[in-house]
Amino acid sequence: MTSLTPNKARANLESLYRIFTVPEAPDSTLGAIDQAISDDVTGFLQTHIVAIERNLEEIEANFSSSAIPEEPTYVSEYTEFVKENLVAHSVHTAAPGFVGHMTSALPYFMLPLARVMTALNQNLVKVETSKAFTPMERQVIAMLHHLVYRRDDDFYPSWIHNSQHALGAFCSGGTIANVTALWVARNRLFPPDGDFRGIAREGLARALKHSGYEGIAVLVSERGHYSFGKATDLLGIGRDHLIKVNTDENNRIDLKLLRLACRRLQDENIRPLALVGIAGTTETGNIDPLEAMADFAQEIDCHFHVDAAWGGPTLFSDRYRRLLAGIERADSVTIDAHKQLYVPMGAGMVVFKDPTALSAIEHHANYILRHGSKDLGSHTLEGSRPGMAMLVHAGLSIIGRKGYELLIDMGIERAQTFAAMIRQHPDFELTSKPELNILTYRYCPGAIQQILADATAEQAAVVNSLLDQVCQLLQKSQREAGRTFVSRTRLHTAGYAEELTVLRVVLANPLTTDEILASVLAEQCEIVQQPEIQALLRQIDEL
Amino acid sequence: MTSLTPNKARANLESLYRIFTVPEAPDSTLGAIDQAISDDVTGFLQTHIVAIERNLEEIEANFSSSAIPEEPTYVSEYTEFVKENLVAHSVHTAAPGFVGHMTSALPYFMLPLARVMTALNQNLVKVETSKAFTPMERQVIAMLHHLVYRRDDDFYPSWIHNSQHALGAFCSGGTIANVTALWVARNRLFPPDGDFRGIAREGLARALKHSGYEGIAVLVSERGHYSFGKATDLLGIGRDHLIKVNTDENNRIDLKLLRLACRRLQDENIRPLALVGIAGTTETGNIDPLEAMADFAQEIDCHFHVDAAWGGPTLFSDRYRRLLAGIERADSVTIDAHKQLYVPMGAGMVVFKDPTALSAIEHHANYILRHGSKDLGSHTLEGSRPGMAMLVHAGLSIIGRKGYELLIDMGIERAQTFAAMIRQHPDFELTSKPELNILTYRYCPGAIQQILADATAEQAAVVNSLLDQVCQLLQKSQREAGRTFVSRTRLHTAGYAEELTVLRVVLANPLTTDEILASVLAEQCEIVQQPEIQALLRQIDEL
Repeated sequence: MTSLTPNKARANLESLYRIFTVPEAPDSTLGAIDQAISDDVTGFLQTHIVAIERNLEEIEANFSSSAIPEEPTYVSEYTEFVKENLVAHSVHTAAPGFVGHMTSALPYFMLPLARVMTALNQNLVKVETSKAFTPMERQVIAMLHHLVYRRDDDFYPSWIHNSQHALGAFCSGGTIANVTALWVARNRLFPPDGDFRGIAREGLARALKHSGYEGIAVLVSERGHYSFGKATDLLGIGRDHLIKVNTDENNRIDLKLLRLACRRLQDENIRPLALVGIAGTTETGNIDPLEAMADFAQEIDCHFHVDAAWGGPTLFSDRYRRLLAGIERADSVTIDAHKQLYVPMGAGMVVFKDPTALSAIEHHANYILRHGSKDLGSHTLEGSRPGMAMLVHAGLSIIGRKGYELLIDMGIERAQTFAAMIRQHPDFELTSKPELNILTYRYCPGAIQQILADATAEQAAVVNSLLDQVCQLLQKSQREAGRTFVSRTRLHTAGYAEELTVLRVVLANPLTTDEILASVLAEQCEIVQQPEIQALLRQIDEL
Repeated sequence: MTSLTPNKARANLESLYRIFTVPEAPDSTLGAIDQAISDDVTGFLQTHIVAIERNLEEIEANFSSSAIPEEPTYVSEYTEFVKENLVAHSVHTAAPGFVGHMTSALPYFMLPLARVMTALNQNLVKVETSKAFTPMERQVIAMLHHLVYRRDDDFYPSWIHNSQHALGAFCSGGTIANVTALWVARNRLFPPDGDFRGIAREGLARALKHSGYEGIAVLVSERGHYSFGKATDLLGIGRDHLIKVNTDENNRIDLKLLRLACRRLQDENIRPLALVGIAGTTETGNIDPLEAMADFAQEIDCHFHVDAAWGGPTLFSDRYRRLLAGIERADSVTIDAHKQLYVPMGAGMVVFKDPTALSAIEHHANYILRHGSKDLGSHTLEGSRPGMAMLVHAGLSIIGRKGYELLIDMGIERAQTFAAMIRQHPDFELTSKPELNILTYRYCPGAIQQILADATAEQAAVVNSLLDQVCQLLQKSQREAGRTFVSRTRLHTAGYAEELTVLRVVLANPLTTDEILASVLAEQCEIVQQPEIQALLRQIDEL
């Protein structure tokens, strides 16, 4: 350990001050990139992200050192590195042909406003580090609460800025929102009672002992998001107590099977903790029969949670709102802002029907979150959090209900158009009808569809397994070519005994046109000409 | 519900496309703000955040409607609203006189790079929506792992980009990091064993039944962060099983009491799940005796977690690294990047000594996180996540180890200077000696210190209670005046029987000078002249 000479130490200190006090010059490398993004983010992304995918292992070579660099690097030098090795090989999630996952282009105003947010660097855990951001976030939560529950005008003034309560929790995403909902449900199921000080204090094992139950369980359809598995593990319930109920041919929970599952739990003395309805399944975009689920939840006196992370914003639409009928009876609802509210990544919310529900997970500390403070941190799973709610506030204000309605309607109608294109195409098979703006399909030419129609169960299994491989290769090739992108998943599909590998399309980017969708199919027809895929298809012919 | 006329609908659609396709003009209201922040964020914050605090209730009036606006708003109009009502009344967390909480000024390069991150809008849950960001984040985690554990050069190449494992988890902040660490510890304590399928699948109650324990407990000092309370609640352990061990006069866990607490748990057949050592307590910045805690954890075969959310970056310093000796023996370590890595809000990490530890919470899904994929989402509590790791990567690369060392050393030395100023000042009493860059003190003039020295326990209690009120009023007044800011908390303090209200100072902003610290004290001396505070001080005199 050699110590620095005084001169060198002073020089280092001065350059350190400079990074905190001297802005990047506009003509610097970083300044120029910054300006390019300000001027035209679409152009920037098109220019700087390379279309053809590089092998992940090759990319890893640039990120392989575990040593933290000893010496500082010039910002310009680092920026060159980022441009060539990170930006160039990132994913163009905003491209109108990127229709495989739930990220879309963002409205232009989000970028400069995100910079305002970053520059202010507020911490929403407490008023002392967020001030006006606290009432702003409370308003955003109230707006989403209002969207879901439509309580009357008397309701909100007494709850929006209530120092004892919060109508919901803002968080980094839908997973934390779902976890928060089940955490609240679990704690409300086992409140303090006589000698028992409540599950929050005594824990799950003693809560079960006190109540006499053998266990608790969460019920959701097999289309439920993987976050519910995490949540049951995390909350000590156990993944085996996440009961995955099969769906009907439209990917909606089968109510008879749900009833049956509950009866079976009862026989084992396991208490249903929560029924989870899905408003827009991740894979197929279908909506569970929320009204009937609400009835059933009421009948068995069970928390009813709706995961509307994807589909929640459908409530903006006068035409399609009815698809979510019953959501207003849910005890809690998850909505992601970084999905169909068109906010950058990192913004989710959960709202609760009962404005006092979040008391079940309330916590305090001496230096912040003091009793009676309006600090938002006393009712959130996370601690320190950025002011992302500002971008939701901006979206709701600038786009407005009617603007979001247009976006929602466009997505749903485009999915119907695409479904029709797939149905009419001789080489593709629609594997789930779009209810919202998500659908699945697979490559399965008419001749093979005919083979499948006449096949025995065993023959069909062989054909489908070969088609699964086709689908997988197709999806990978298309992704690597980088022109358009669809995702893939495995699904139980009506009419088939086994799970199928299918292509999945999410149509939320308003810049996606029918022409682009036609080109997605055209490209797939080209890709299947590849020898590897042709060999698989020949195997089917030869069966 | 009236439907739009075709003309109006078309006009709406066009303006909707515009927000996705046409950048803000440089001379627009938002464009101008954006430019102002690019040119000089310090100036922007100084100009736009009003110094004198407005009453929170007044601010709330601007965020009181729960109705989502029906019609779109012009970006310029909304920007004016944001400027006047949100930005103006936010908190100037970057101000060098804002020394009360853990937010500091940010290096300039963070802002343009944050815009690159937002523009790219990657989702780190899976490679398909993040590509190069995945290896980049894996590298960042490896770098932090290396900082803590210093494993040799053979170790990292086999783990950094391992598709089965992750050396740690990137998350939104220290709370999720601490929760993840305890979640892993809990699941590793109850792995599959014979008929028992493991706690992840069967849940906590059955795990306890299988193992024969009455319960499990987490042990941490009374200075432990409030996230451990949340974690024990969330994980089903129960807050009563978070055992808060008293500290010595230097706010470090009392090892004898820790042993005693463990023995008591043993008597109750409660298994210690984790010992938590703190490397930089939130309130006083002290560091637990990590080496001795590691010994003890080994002795009782217990997971040892170190919460280094604050103090972790002390490892950059050749001079002060020794303060954290023993941290390399921890099973898991939390470090927040939005604290002393000078990254904007929303970036935390937890690293694990055992590179396979995170398997205990592994999860998969059909459409992403497939087995053998390098998707980061299979080992994180959160699902969709932004590419914040990029900003950590930038900090580590541009500032370098030596740059961070300078920042750390400066903070620690400035705290020593400030402690000396307080000790020399006749009107203040230092209530915790700084070990890192955090200290606490209170207003307590020499004459009152004399009264306290001669007082009976009862008299002291009365005096301290009056001084608590002085401290509280002082802190509030100073915050409201908006020139400088310290925070406050309540602490057990050496030499006093009761908890005291104290002022808390965090010195991480490199732009904070000794002159500013002198002005903090000077302002406090002015504030105590206020009649309300003088009345309290007279009450002490009259005792």
